[in-house]
Amino acid sequence: MTGPGLAAGALAQALLQPRSIALYGASDDPGKIAGRPLQFLQRSGYAGRIYPINPGRPQVQGLKAWPSLDRLPEVPEQVFVLTPTGQVLAAAHRCAALGVKLITILASGFSESGREGLQREAELRDLARASGMRILGPSSLGVVNPRVGLVLTANAVFAEPELPVGKVFVASHSGSMIGALVSRGKARAVGFAGLVSVGSEADLSLGEICQATLDDPGIEGYLLFLESLRHGAALQRFARAAAACGKPVIAYKLGRSEAAAQMAGTHTGALAGADDIADAFLKDLGIARVQMLESLLEALPLAQRLPLPLLRPDMPPARRVGVVSTTGGGAAMVVDQLGVRGLQVQCPSEATQERLKAAGIPGNAGRVLDLTLAGTRYAVMKAALQILLDAPEFDMLIAVLGSSARLQPQLALQPILDSASHRKPLMAMLLPDAPQALAQLSRAAVPCFRTPEGCADVLAAVLARRSPGAPACPDHGGAGAAFIDEAQSYAVLDELQLPHAPVLTAALAGPVPGVLPFPFPVAVKLCSAQILHKTEVGGVVLGVDSAQALSEAFATLRQRLTERLPGVPCEQVLLQPMCQGLIEVLLGYRVDPDAGLIVLLAAGGIWAELVRERSIRLAPVGIGSAWEMIGEVRALQTVAGLRGQPKGDLAALAQAISDLSQLALRPELGVVQAEMNPMLVLREGQGVLALDAVVMRKDWVGP
Amino acid sequence: MTGPGLAAGALAQALLQPRSIALYGASDDPGKIAGRPLQFLQRSGYAGRIYPINPGRPQVQGLKAWPSLDRLPEVPEQVFVLTPTGQVLAAAHRCAALGVKLITILASGFSESGREGLQREAELRDLARASGMRILGPSSLGVVNPRVGLVLTANAVFAEPELPVGKVFVASHSGSMIGALVSRGKARAVGFAGLVSVGSEADLSLGEICQATLDDPGIEGYLLFLESLRHGAALQRFARAAAACGKPVIAYKLGRSEAAAQMAGTHTGALAGADDIADAFLKDLGIARVQMLESLLEALPLAQRLPLPLLRPDMPPARRVGVVSTTGGGAAMVVDQLGVRGLQVQCPSEATQERLKAAGIPGNAGRVLDLTLAGTRYAVMKAALQILLDAPEFDMLIAVLGSSARLQPQLALQPILDSASHRKPLMAMLLPDAPQALAQLSRAAVPCFRTPEGCADVLAAVLARRSPGAPACPDHGGAGAAFIDEAQSYAVLDELQLPHAPVLTAALAGPVPGVLPFPFPVAVKLCSAQILHKTEVGGVVLGVDSAQALSEAFATLRQRLTERLPGVPCEQVLLQPMCQGLIEVLLGYRVDPDAGLIVLLAAGGIWAELVRERSIRLAPVGIGSAWEMIGEVRALQTVAGLRGQPKGDLAALAQAISDLSQLALRPELGVVQAEMNPMLVLREGQGVLALDAVVMRKDWVGP
Repeated sequence: MTGPGLAAGALAQALLQPRSIALYGASDDPGKIAGRPLQFLQRSGYAGRIYPINPGRPQVQGLKAWPSLDRLPEVPEQVFVLTPTGQVLAAAHRCAALGVKLITILASGFSESGREGLQREAELRDLARASGMRILGPSSLGVVNPRVGLVLTANAVFAEPELPVGKVFVASHSGSMIGALVSRGKARAVGFAGLVSVGSEADLSLGEICQATLDDPGIEGYLLFLESLRHGAALQRFARAAAACGKPVIAYKLGRSEAAAQMAGTHTGALAGADDIADAFLKDLGIARVQMLESLLEALPLAQRLPLPLLRPDMPPARRVGVVSTTGGGAAMVVDQLGVRGLQVQCPSEATQERLKAAGIPGNAGRVLDLTLAGTRYAVMKAALQILLDAPEFDMLIAVLGSSARLQPQLALQPILDSASHRKPLMAMLLPDAPQALAQLSRAAVPCFRTPEGCADVLAAVLARRSPGAPACPDHGGAGAAFIDEAQSYAVLDELQLPHAPVLTAALAGPVPGVLPFPFPVAVKLCSAQILHKTEVGGVVLGVDSAQALSEAFATLRQRLTERLPGVPCEQVLLQPMCQGLIEVLLGYRVDPDAGLIVLLAAGGIWAELVRERSIRLAPVGIGSAWEMIGEVRALQTVAGLRGQPKGDLAALAQAISDLSQLALRPELGVVQAEMNPMLVLREGQGVLALDAVVMRKDWVGP
Repeated sequence: MTGPGLAAGALAQALLQPRSIALYGASDDPGKIAGRPLQFLQRSGYAGRIYPINPGRPQVQGLKAWPSLDRLPEVPEQVFVLTPTGQVLAAAHRCAALGVKLITILASGFSESGREGLQREAELRDLARASGMRILGPSSLGVVNPRVGLVLTANAVFAEPELPVGKVFVASHSGSMIGALVSRGKARAVGFAGLVSVGSEADLSLGEICQATLDDPGIEGYLLFLESLRHGAALQRFARAAAACGKPVIAYKLGRSEAAAQMAGTHTGALAGADDIADAFLKDLGIARVQMLESLLEALPLAQRLPLPLLRPDMPPARRVGVVSTTGGGAAMVVDQLGVRGLQVQCPSEATQERLKAAGIPGNAGRVLDLTLAGTRYAVMKAALQILLDAPEFDMLIAVLGSSARLQPQLALQPILDSASHRKPLMAMLLPDAPQALAQLSRAAVPCFRTPEGCADVLAAVLARRSPGAPACPDHGGAGAAFIDEAQSYAVLDELQLPHAPVLTAALAGPVPGVLPFPFPVAVKLCSAQILHKTEVGGVVLGVDSAQALSEAFATLRQRLTERLPGVPCEQVLLQPMCQGLIEVLLGYRVDPDAGLIVLLAAGGIWAELVRERSIRLAPVGIGSAWEMIGEVRALQTVAGLRGQPKGDLAALAQAISDLSQLALRPELGVVQAEMNPMLVLREGQGVLALDAVVMRKDWVGP
């Protein structure tokens, strides 16, 4: 969904390859922020036309200056607005009036600056909608495309000559990160096909920008620096499209800790969602989320060698890693770091060990093949790599090199370069400081790592990606939705064939039902769409074990309603038998403002307080993914056949997860939130049972 | 405890500053491993006397060769034995006979190579004991002291000229790691006062080697690369001595994952202990354990600025971190990484914000003071640093710099260098690739970090150190120890004033006691030092609720003893009332083969299966540390006052932990292991109660 004015191709063109640029408010002083873009553009060999707009001078930095936009000989394809905040709106209006396709706004002072700022930003957004002109920013440090010398940015790092040109596209919520990635990329021989500081995304969002560039054959992969998941729908569309055309996406996302999540909130005006939701979102869309800054630069080559379809859950797992080394200590560090992230290194099989022996390859083949100093001979390393890459027990191989990688690359490094075309991925981790070797490997597209932690981080992130499943139906927005009462909520569960405890409703005013369809004891609850937290207001009476007690329960509930919730409408009570399960879970479905439709499983009861684990997926999910979710909630291991403990009906739970998640494909039900808490897991073969249900839905006109 | 022959000073001298060296088995070919040390020594400007021993040639690499050791004009201070494994023992014997003080053995093929290897190693050890000659290795890649050009190693990395000289001492279980640290140190302007590859520590252990160098004024701190905690006692002595003289120790230890722990086992013949025990050991000895390779090189300057006494638990916590930045994204990454490790960044106080405003310092002071681009002016950054360092709410400050650190160090970097002498530690994290800036900071002893992860790792590791407490009494070895029965075990608990359930013993043969000192129901258990796992063999009958049932229980136990444990002596049964607590824990004390005397607290019951958390400290521990341990066992939070749940008597538990740990100071009791499992935590004010006890002790001759 691009904006009204510009198709994706035209947007990419205006953004990354504009034939003409106006610098609105360009300064004559190249040391000033508003003077930098012109300086950089002139230095970088940009071949398009540049128009500095500055009514105060005839020339700016040696170039003819123009007094205003409408005096230019053409409508520039992109305008970089460099003025202070107060003048931005006027400039934007002038650009729109002239028919400019795309403007980039450097100034801050919009959504992150209180009510006035929010108003300014809303005006910008309205202008974009009305005019069709697209806006990058505000708070954007600009756009860089090293391929054409487009250095349209105020970021000081671009004062350096020789930008690294390559096939990596970067989009970042943080402007300074772009400079850091360029300098770190340069040191690692990673080159870029474009870098965009998206700023506060008043109009163009990060996802839309990336999606617009997907057809660019000069771009092979994407690096995202995310402060939060804002504009998740656009990000989701981009990720699905990227997965479909086989271009890998790597993301670093802030907000793993609460403090940083709060900061992301204040820093840009975006509300930071819960990090575990973001994590599930990224993995479910096939995005590799790395945990370390440098991994952003190290992950793409491996992600390219391990395309997403190979990671489908219904395929046999292709994640058996072998390790060969010339340094036992270095190899042990890699094995350790992989182990910490749940990845086991595979031992060479006996057949492989035989083959190694027959080839006269020295060293100890324990968990890793440690060639020791002997591995620093070309022939030895080359033969070992060949045998290990051919061995059926490995899906990929890591070579860990010691000091020879730095001093004698022809011995141990060259065999890696010469084996890189094997159909199985071969990676390298270099224990010494060896920047030249890393650059050589990068240029040969061999996934290579500067530290054992980086190696393990990248491998774990790339292998944790999941192929995107069926997209949910659109239009699940929550506008106009409201909670329905518990009895109505059970009707929705019935529609989805989700089991719940039997229910009887009765008028709160009485009479008390004489005959129950289930035996005592029962639970009696107030039933009203206005009362969501029944327990907290005393709206539940448990363990009612006789007709007499039932009458008393009705009276109690009437009294509490009057006393504690005066004026709150509640005409019904709901009766249920008291049920017990092996363990309680919370099973929920909801529309997350950033991530979209998600399904969520968590432990209930005391587990919920202590072991705050929940498993999240984008809805809908199949049975396989539902089982994965169950595996991620540790408390459920207590009923999975632990040492003599009774087994719970986890198959029924998996079915329930999948059934609930089908809401994502049934917009006609109008459900925007559904939560069962508790849902009881009964003994194996006896199923699961929701004991409470809270559903929010939009007006529904019946099937 | 140095060996018989050599005082610590003399050992350090022979190891790091020998005036003469013999190279036993030196090769004429500098490309061969046995030829490298001579090549390196000649290149590096070593001023001592070098004697190549090679009976086959008149000259080796241009130097006069000697046919044998006893033909040398003097007894060399150190001999590097470069021969193959088979000739090592003969060489060692010849050295010892001649009165050589120290030999280093390069060859492998000893303890890690089966029975024959173990025998060879035992012979070496016996030779060292008998002769007083000390042995480094086998499997040692050698010793380097850049200060005097001593490059006595076969590690290829030392072929490079210009070793980085400095004040850091490295001891490593892995030889290749030494090369990696040298090259990485060089890139970071970290220099070394010595590097030792300790090999398999047949005689000299890593701890003893380091301790021998503690008086060297040229050494300011220690980096340890540990595969396991082997020779823990020597390491402990060194760490205590290092803490006493204020020289910080940083360690990277393998074995966080099980796979790597196993590898460490096979790699060197050392048994890898449980990693959480090692972790407690290192922290309790004041050693900063980092989790990332590069942190080893980054941690020392901060550890020097935060000496151990400042970290005493009885002092107010000095860990309030402030952050100032020129890059919002970079600062957010640092905050995030610190948060993931449980470290909260402190906000500037209102008073501080006032002062910043008064000084005309721009930027947003949220959780961090983000100066944005304006911070890249000397005056702004300098004034901001001054105000923040002077602010009472901060104990230390991290400055996060963007691209200016790379391109315009005079603007944002120089103020940091100029503020480094403040009494509070000032650190720097550089977001771009900025090797020169990092080197400048390193040379100025400013703690500086290449990545946000490294910054957080180092800070967490340095702040997690604890000042070493009282050392345990020596001679707690387990030789000659045996388990005692449960009734005798309770007598030991009584001695330590540890509460346990009341106990009555009776003869298993009968008669069944008629009157009990406590009411029914009771538990009846077989009581024998030979039966440790009573439950597993049916040796426990629970819930015995009458005299009749008691008779039956005796009969049942007699029958089970006969059937399931024929021949196992057991004359007694033990009766206890059935007790219930709020939660069960395991509380234990033991002599760990590596870490020494430890006390251990873990959750019992279902928690033990699922949330495998245990807290470990070196014994003895005080009440303060005992409370820390309780805080580290998450399950105990359920009885710490959680939302309406009853509170447990955690004060009594803390007292019990401390009381049990006093065993470390009472060698006269001869207890080498004591475990209470379960120990019940009762309601607040009601104490704790051991329900079972297993004690192992040496022959005890009474008080």
